[in-house]
Amino acid sequence: MTGTESWFQGHLQELTREQCLELLETRSVGRVAFNTPDGPEVLPLNYVVHDESVVFRTSPHSGLGRQLQVAAAAFQVDDIDDYTESGWSVLLRGSVRPVEFEDLPPADRRPRTWVAGVRSLHLRLLPTTITGRRLLPG
Amino acid sequence: MTGTESWFQGHLQELTREQCLELLETRSVGRVAFNTPDGPEVLPLNYVVHDESVVFRTSPHSGLGRQLQVAAAAFQVDDIDDYTESGWSVLLRGSVRPVEFEDLPPADRRPRTWVAGVRSLHLRLLPTTITGRRLLPG
Repeated sequence: MTGTESWFQGHLQELTREQCLELLETRSVGRVAFNTPDGPEVLPLNYVVHDESVVFRTSPHSGLGRQLQVAAAAFQVDDIDDYTESGWSVLLRGSVRPVEFEDLPPADRRPRTWVAGVRSLHLRLLPTTITGRRLLPG
Repeated sequence: MTGTESWFQGHLQELTREQCLELLETRSVGRVAFNTPDGPEVLPLNYVVHDESVVFRTSPHSGLGRQLQVAAAAFQVDDIDDYTESGWSVLLRGSVRPVEFEDLPPADRRPRTWVAGVRSLHLRLLPTTITGRRLLPG
């Protein structure tokens, strides 16, 4: 046992789909992961939850916007507490598709981005699986 | 402009490799991303920085432990401030390899995990690129 080792370690608990969706609603920044010719890419961005999927905005000229044709993507959200050494993480796995105008959330529930600049392309990650785990303090 | 829109949006600033490594040292949980037959996987875990690479522990029986042969992986760390709508994100892209015993960091600088259970496999993500961005408040 080293000086920084905890006396008690935490335990992982699987979250239900309902708990995952509830936690997903509590955050405003998540991370989209997708594969590129140079390996996996992970980008934090603002999002909203809409119809049990995640909607976010990007520039059509961004790496993410250009690589839309990738079939598979994941979206990850977590909350980590360094003091109690606990937290939770939720992962949606599925595919990313552009959102047609008529399928956008109502105007007051669309994603807004913290970053300045044109983010005219709305993308939706439609999950095939939603999983999550909570790490309970030891 | 919707009710939740900021009057001023933040601006992105690229970080140097040195800044990225410095920020990487300030956190204890990061997210490893790797590709699987079911698409990208993203897993939060504890890590340490060692020789400009990231070292973490897992079980040899975990999905991560079993899928070691994937050539490419990414490791992402960030810090997000919801109040000022700012933050930073650092991404290491490279490949994951098991760490031989003689290549482990000194005993007091090895990764310790918050989660109970056997995590006997030490892995190293050796980055080929280290990039990062800071989002300055608007």
